[in-house]
Parts: sequence; C-alpha cells; structure tokens
Amino acid sequence: MITSPHNDKLKLIRKLQQRRHRASSGLFVAEGEDLVEAADAAGAHAELVLVAGQDVEAGLLDSVSELGSGTRIIGVYHQRWSEPSGDVRVYLHGVRDPGNVGTIIRTAHALADGPVVLGPGCADPYSPKAVRASMGSVFAIPPAAADLSDLEGFKLALDGDAPDTLRDAELEAPLVVCLGAEREGLPADVGSRVDATARIPMRPGAPNSLNVAGAAAIALYEVANRMADRA
Amino acid sequence: MITSPHNDKLKLIRKLQQRRHRASSGLFVAEGEDLVEAADAAGAHAELVLVAGQDVEAGLLDSVSELGSGTRIIGVYHQRWSEPSGDVRVYLHGVRDPGNVGTIIRTAHALADGPVVLGPGCADPYSPKAVRASMGSVFAIPPAAADLSDLEGFKLALDGDAPDTLRDAELEAPLVVCLGAEREGLPADVGSRVDATARIPMRPGAPNSLNVAGAAAIALYEVANRMADRA
Repeated sequence: MITSPHNDKLKLIRKLQQRRHRASSGLFVAEGEDLVEAADAAGAHAELVLVAGQDVEAGLLDSVSELGSGTRIIGVYHQRWSEPSGDVRVYLHGVRDPGNVGTIIRTAHALADGPVVLGPGCADPYSPKAVRASMGSVFAIPPAAADLSDLEGFKLALDGDAPDTLRDAELEAPLVVCLGAEREGLPADVGSRVDATARIPMRPGAPNSLNVAGAAAIALYEVANRMADRA
Repeated sequence: MITSPHNDKLKLIRKLQQRRHRASSGLFVAEGEDLVEAADAAGAHAELVLVAGQDVEAGLLDSVSELGSGTRIIGVYHQRWSEPSGDVRVYLHGVRDPGNVGTIIRTAHALADGPVVLGPGCADPYSPKAVRASMGSVFAIPPAAADLSDLEGFKLALDGDAPDTLRDAELEAPLVVCLGAEREGLPADVGSRVDATARIPMRPGAPNSLNVAGAAAIALYEVANRMADRA
C-alpha cells in the first residue's frame, strides 16, 4: 500500500499531466473504471494500475487525479498509434481542444473504419481530457499522426463556403475527411491539397460554424450512408 | 473604475457562478468579446458590462472570471426563454453536462428552426460552461424549458436499440427530436410517450453510444435533409 506522496508511481502519474512527459515517455494516464475496462478490453499494455484503498491510500490517489476526489482507479498505459489507413479516416488540422479530439476519436470508432489522423497543431489525444472524452475509444482504435500529404486516398474537406453539400460532393473510397479548426478552417496550403470540398447545409441566420466534433459526426454519418448506398 | 474586490458588481458576478443565484435572479454571466458581441447582435438586455482597464482593474476582473486570467470583458444578462415551438425542436432529458447542452444549443441554431427544450435533469443552459459552448447561440435562440408531455408535434426519440434507422424512421412536422443521457438514454416513462424511435447506424464493434451532442447533430442534419427532400 502506497502511503507516501513521494512514491515514484504517484510522481509518474503527476508528471504525465504534462504533454512533454507524455511525449518523452510514450505513456499516458487513464482514470476511472470505465477507461481501465476499455483498456483491458482492447488488450492495452498497462505500465501500472493503482486501485484506491488497495494499492494506494484513497486520498493520495485523489491528489494525483485530474478528475478530483473519489477516484477509484488510475492506470498508466503505453501510447499506441495506428497506421493512417482505412476506407474512411478523419484528418484533423489545428484542432486544439482536447475534448473535441477525444470526442472525434469516439465518433470515428462508432462510424468509420479508420483511425483519426492528427495533423499539425492538434491537441494531444493522450491528454487526460482527450482520453476521457474518447470514452475509451482511444484504446480500441488508437489515433494516427501524419501530415495530409502523407495520406493516400481521396481527400474531402469540410468547408462552410464550398458550393457542394456533403450529399452532393464527389467522394471515393478510400476517403479522408479533412477538418480544420472551428474558426479558421483548414489553412490555405492544406485546403489546396484536397480533392473536393463540401459544406453542411445550415439555416439562414445560422452561426458561422458548427462545433468541430459535431461537424465530424455529421460528415462521417453522411459518408457512411453514401458508401452504403453504393455498395 | 472598480478597485475593490468587495464591489457589488463583482460580488454579483461571483454569485452567478451558482445555479441557485442564477435561478433566483434570472441573470447569467457571459465572458469574452465574442459572447458580448453575440449578446449585442441578439439585442440581449445587459444588466451590466465590465471592461478590464476601463470599468474595473484587470486583475479584479480576472478574479471573478470562470475562464481565468486575461479576461477583457464580462457581461451580466437577463435570461431569456423561448416558447417550445417550431417545426424542428430538440428535447433533452437528463443531459447533465453543461458543455453538451451548450453545444446542442449551438447546433440547433445552425440546423433547426426551433429552440432546444430542456426537460428534467438537464444542466442549466445559463451556466458559464453552457453559455461558452453555445458560442452565443444561447442569445440568438434562447432555450425553452418544458416537459415532453407539454410539447405538441410528432416525437421521434433517438434510441440505439430502435429497429428503424434515422433515414427510415417515420417523421412528421412539427417534429420533436428527443434525446436522453448518453448511457441511460430516455427513461422508460418518457420513451413510452414518443411517436417513433430511430437509431444512428453504427459499425460492428462500435462503442455503446455516441456523444449526445454528436448524436443531436446527426439527427438534426438528417431530419433537415429529409424534410427538404419532401418540400
């Protein structure tokens, strides 16, 4: 039973709140029973798992938790990264919010067969917030990291100014659905490298943009339907 | 220029972090230039607006901010509530996460003509997190509060176990798209009061559920397309 805040395992968990420590160690933290179960189900490689009241005093586990009090279990896992292949992949550029990155990983797990590919300027998918938002999908379908130019396949970018809607835009499998930051969209040099653009039809007086995770959900839904119609 | 932390305006802003103070006063806080602009654009009634370095010392404004340091402007506004009418409305039951509630208000503003109707057990749409996630849509299309049985129209519930998909399910205008909490879904007594159910098709091995805001986005997108096809 760990009873000292200076214990090395607790120190490791604390350090992994920082992106640079996650990057240098290749490790990350998952908190809570649901995530640890998702890790087990996916056969993820645990570096360590600490259960409150069994391996560590409950108060000490709380003290290294990102979720606050009442944490019952924390696991440290080895990051895994997928190859950026698959019939339908999402490519994100400059999506800085970890909650959105994690939510999109969850959504892609439900609706697409390929991983979420993280391009430049994205939040770390192994940050605590992203892992939590992924609801464990980060274990089931690990993210990929690549630049758009390294991806094979037909590249369709979501763009509010595109003439074609998602229903009418050209698309081919294997497909890469490209999304940028909510306000800026894709930078011009990325936008110029896609094969087609499409917009989500909005009502008159609508806001400038949708939440990027909502836009990704709509795009993956529509693309799956269109591909099923063809098959 | 406010220079005392005991100033009544600052005290009011601090109090409004609590739901019961928002409920009793009918006021809420919006932070940041984007939200204050959205409020102005919607003609919202400001109780007060404080600009850092002009009306109040910057450090003091930071101290009452939910966003942390660097806050340049905070406004206090009167809550507005819509009638729960419209051709397409979202009804939420037990959606406790304020970020999801705010995001769905934003999405409905983009894709539907009616307000988001909040049933029992939902997060306060006027909490700081919900207001921020709404990106100002809470000003443009204020939420409604009602029980499902008080709503007129055809009620379609999203349900992962429904036999029909969103594309095939029966629907009629005026429509109420009903969503429950991510895990529990709609409680049985609510589910039994809807006219139809529909599921979002998921891949084999998919997670149990989508993020509720993503599910709402997909449902509103599909419903808008189906209604446009008929018109």
